[in-house]
Amino acid sequence: MAEPIGAFPTLDDLRAAAARIAPHARRTPVMTCITLDAMAGADLFFKCENFQKVGAFKFRGACNAVFSLTEAEAARGVVTHSSGNHAQALALAARMRGIPAYIVMPRTTPAIKQAAVEGYGGRVTLCEPNQAAREAAAQLIIDETGAALVHPYNDYRVIAGQATAAMELFEQVPNLDAIIAPVGGGGLLSGTALATRYVSPNTLVFAGEPEGADDAFRSVRDGMIYPSVEPKTIADGLLTALGDKTFPIVREHLKQILLVDDDAIRAAMRLIFERMKIVVEPSSAVPLAAVLANADTFAGQRVGLILSGGNVDLAAMKW
Amino acid sequence: MAEPIGAFPTLDDLRAAAARIAPHARRTPVMTCITLDAMAGADLFFKCENFQKVGAFKFRGACNAVFSLTEAEAARGVVTHSSGNHAQALALAARMRGIPAYIVMPRTTPAIKQAAVEGYGGRVTLCEPNQAAREAAAQLIIDETGAALVHPYNDYRVIAGQATAAMELFEQVPNLDAIIAPVGGGGLLSGTALATRYVSPNTLVFAGEPEGADDAFRSVRDGMIYPSVEPKTIADGLLTALGDKTFPIVREHLKQILLVDDDAIRAAMRLIFERMKIVVEPSSAVPLAAVLANADTFAGQRVGLILSGGNVDLAAMKW
Repeated sequence: MAEPIGAFPTLDDLRAAAARIAPHARRTPVMTCITLDAMAGADLFFKCENFQKVGAFKFRGACNAVFSLTEAEAARGVVTHSSGNHAQALALAARMRGIPAYIVMPRTTPAIKQAAVEGYGGRVTLCEPNQAAREAAAQLIIDETGAALVHPYNDYRVIAGQATAAMELFEQVPNLDAIIAPVGGGGLLSGTALATRYVSPNTLVFAGEPEGADDAFRSVRDGMIYPSVEPKTIADGLLTALGDKTFPIVREHLKQILLVDDDAIRAAMRLIFERMKIVVEPSSAVPLAAVLANADTFAGQRVGLILSGGNVDLAAMKW
Repeated sequence: MAEPIGAFPTLDDLRAAAARIAPHARRTPVMTCITLDAMAGADLFFKCENFQKVGAFKFRGACNAVFSLTEAEAARGVVTHSSGNHAQALALAARMRGIPAYIVMPRTTPAIKQAAVEGYGGRVTLCEPNQAAREAAAQLIIDETGAALVHPYNDYRVIAGQATAAMELFEQVPNLDAIIAPVGGGGLLSGTALATRYVSPNTLVFAGEPEGADDAFRSVRDGMIYPSVEPKTIADGLLTALGDKTFPIVREHLKQILLVDDDAIRAAMRLIFERMKIVVEPSSAVPLAAVLANADTFAGQRVGLILSGGNVDLAAMKW
């Protein structure tokens, strides 16, 4: 058993998170695909978080945060600013605990995403579409209600929750040579890195990142957090920058960030639909795109890939 | 244990099929979805044959037929006429046994389907797009090679193979009140009916059929096999008519055929993509469409639905 790492979540924290969310979250399956193995020249094990509650790994972190609160804290509710999967995840986790969830979303958020949050009982507050307005709106709610902020990724409870995906994968598939997750704000990646360090220390940790949103790649390379400025990629779950809690973990435990362009992401997404017969969002396809583009790195290895979620807009498809 | 039914495949035949294909076919998972349960007012259990080899239940029947042949028969190969999943299934099963598969396809078959069969090692013969030309082309191959004909559905070995999907489902989910499969030529449905009769006789057997291809509905109603004349439906796996081997089984053991229109099929297909995060072909969505359209029939029941396959043309989707 490895030593805990500074102030980072410990192995006990990760185990506590796994136990805490077990009654609420899904233990998602691991899938394999002979065709994709042949294309990669490696044995690929896909951890299917598209089958997680709300259709994304985000439920793990939100659930751990919500059920970590004391009764007194919980009674005042939770708040976050997000227009994506974290918003739905927090709303559902709060509803499971029977407490209010206040969700701040930019006015530009598609109505369908607002409706999804409200469908889980979340109380939506719209704000101007910029970071200052989001934070101000969240602070106003905190001042008025005493609700606890649950940041989408820069929160150790969230990181420990996301780590449970890799913890499960290591139980389901022993002896992985490598594990790869997509990176946006780094919640999933830092959780994956910690889980690997603690329970499968010989496994190398990789990340896949879109070329059009390569702030994490540059941040790790240069040893400082760059903001994500006008990112442009189909992988709309990976637009955010690393935070001061995710960056040090990523920096310390990551082998390499692999960049892929949107054409490679689209092609990988289509392979997953057509060959594995499952629905994934573009962000989920980034690790496969990275593995296929770096065949030499993974040749002959056992590689775990985290499929982060399946919430893709299918309206463009002919039905 | 029920008695065997006339000349129909017996329970021993079904068990032999299950044992015969076990080393080659996938034991597919059963999925559930809380949202769809709520919509249906019933507990739905989806048998995911979209995850079967070649992406469809058809592999079960083709595999059972191919591995039922004697060494001498097998050495001469197998032949069929099909442009769909059965063609790919037979080609793969033949490759697994190391014997030739001759596949007769109409000239109008999309190149991608021809390539898929050839990708599994099948030898494609193109013919004019009518039934007489298909049968003549197949007969010519039989005369030349001595290959064994494996009909897509009107073959007891194929029916026994398809029955293994329901056999597995009953093992995976006990105490189903009802089971529902789509019906085209009736291979899957008659296999499902036999499996139910033998191993879960209290379960009612339903079929879903497109309104635009309702020949099985009329055939069962009137007690005679109607041909499928100019069928028109999005569910392109269900265009064929019942055969003289499938019809008597279906007729004897079926509770009801439920008709659904293409709008209902499209809506059900989209629900499966969006809510279950899996890829299915339109034919697979017919049972769910039927269950949702007949809520009173299934209210409060435990219902098994066979998702027949996942080979849908995704080219229409924006990537």
